[in-house]
Amino acid sequence: METLRLYDFLPSGNGYKIRLLLSQMGIPYERIEVNILKGESRTPEFLSKNPNGKIPVLEVDPGKYLTESNAILTYLSEYTEFLPYDRFLKAQVFQWLFFEQYSHEPYIATSRFWISILGKAEEYQAALAQKQEPGYAALSVMENHLQSHLYFVGDRYTIADIALFAYTHVADEGGFDLSRFPAIQRWIGRVQAQPGYISITHEPMPLEAEFC
Amino acid sequence: METLRLYDFLPSGNGYKIRLLLSQMGIPYERIEVNILKGESRTPEFLSKNPNGKIPVLEVDPGKYLTESNAILTYLSEYTEFLPYDRFLKAQVFQWLFFEQYSHEPYIATSRFWISILGKAEEYQAALAQKQEPGYAALSVMENHLQSHLYFVGDRYTIADIALFAYTHVADEGGFDLSRFPAIQRWIGRVQAQPGYISITHEPMPLEAEFC
Repeated sequence: METLRLYDFLPSGNGYKIRLLLSQMGIPYERIEVNILKGESRTPEFLSKNPNGKIPVLEVDPGKYLTESNAILTYLSEYTEFLPYDRFLKAQVFQWLFFEQYSHEPYIATSRFWISILGKAEEYQAALAQKQEPGYAALSVMENHLQSHLYFVGDRYTIADIALFAYTHVADEGGFDLSRFPAIQRWIGRVQAQPGYISITHEPMPLEAEFC
Repeated sequence: METLRLYDFLPSGNGYKIRLLLSQMGIPYERIEVNILKGESRTPEFLSKNPNGKIPVLEVDPGKYLTESNAILTYLSEYTEFLPYDRFLKAQVFQWLFFEQYSHEPYIATSRFWISILGKAEEYQAALAQKQEPGYAALSVMENHLQSHLYFVGDRYTIADIALFAYTHVADEGGFDLSRFPAIQRWIGRVQAQPGYISITHEPMPLEAEFC
């Protein structure tokens, strides 16, 4: 296999999911920054990689592209410690991955994007207000689960935790108050204590480090 | 394994995905109608099955519940003809499943819900207008793909087709004009010609048919 190439935007939680898993799996890769704020995910060249115009995109072999952060997590983790082999546990991982994309990300990630990436809290005030209730509902579902579980599936760390961690741990950047959710806070600490953990803005080591 | 039990709402496309796959796999099941318009997915009893308060829910064994329509599709189809075994093709199926939940369903299914299930097109006029552009963008991504492919992944019918078919073939009920998308229309015909196809409002045969 050629070196994996990740088309990514450093502040993106969806991109961070892939960076975090690759770091924890010890897999080297080349990261290519796509500045979505400058329209770089809407160029004809980028759209030839992902017609839906979104990062992250993983080039798994020259010209072979995978899109959708949670599909990429699944691709990379199958038959590793990060995805259970048991049929029901694996389905529960997928359940949380779809929960994250449908009931969590559109509220918590979008609010963070408007407030902290675009810096336009004022302009998006009305839209932001509409994100509060469903965003807190998603956090409550997580809190209830984590009150009696260490992790999301099977009481071990899986890609379900990675997918949910990405935007949850920076939910305050989208105006969500995590102090109401003590079980989520303890889980955040457990994720941050995992081997190979990196922060959301951590740049990977260059593939060929330069020594002078 | 006990008989599968599906908690469902007949007009729901997300519920229909599971009914369609179970019909095509020839698997009998018990269907339990949950009228979400009457708050039946928000009762303490239902929330004990899915804390996120959404149908469909599949009870795979007594007290063992799976939620999220696309996670249920994955659970049922793994190691069958409906989900490729090849690692990259399988990841492409997941890619389309996440595309459906993130970039398609929130626009096309939600519009249909407001117009044709709630019957409140007037009341939701402003919100409906905002769904048009992203909804048509999702249909365009599908149309472009289907101009050179018979199905979504590997040129055979998979759960990616089932997930995308559920709300696409009734997109007109949400105010989307499918006459602009000839490749989607031809694909709809191919899905409807699959063995075991049932329509969205088809009730399954009772498990024990009564003869007088």
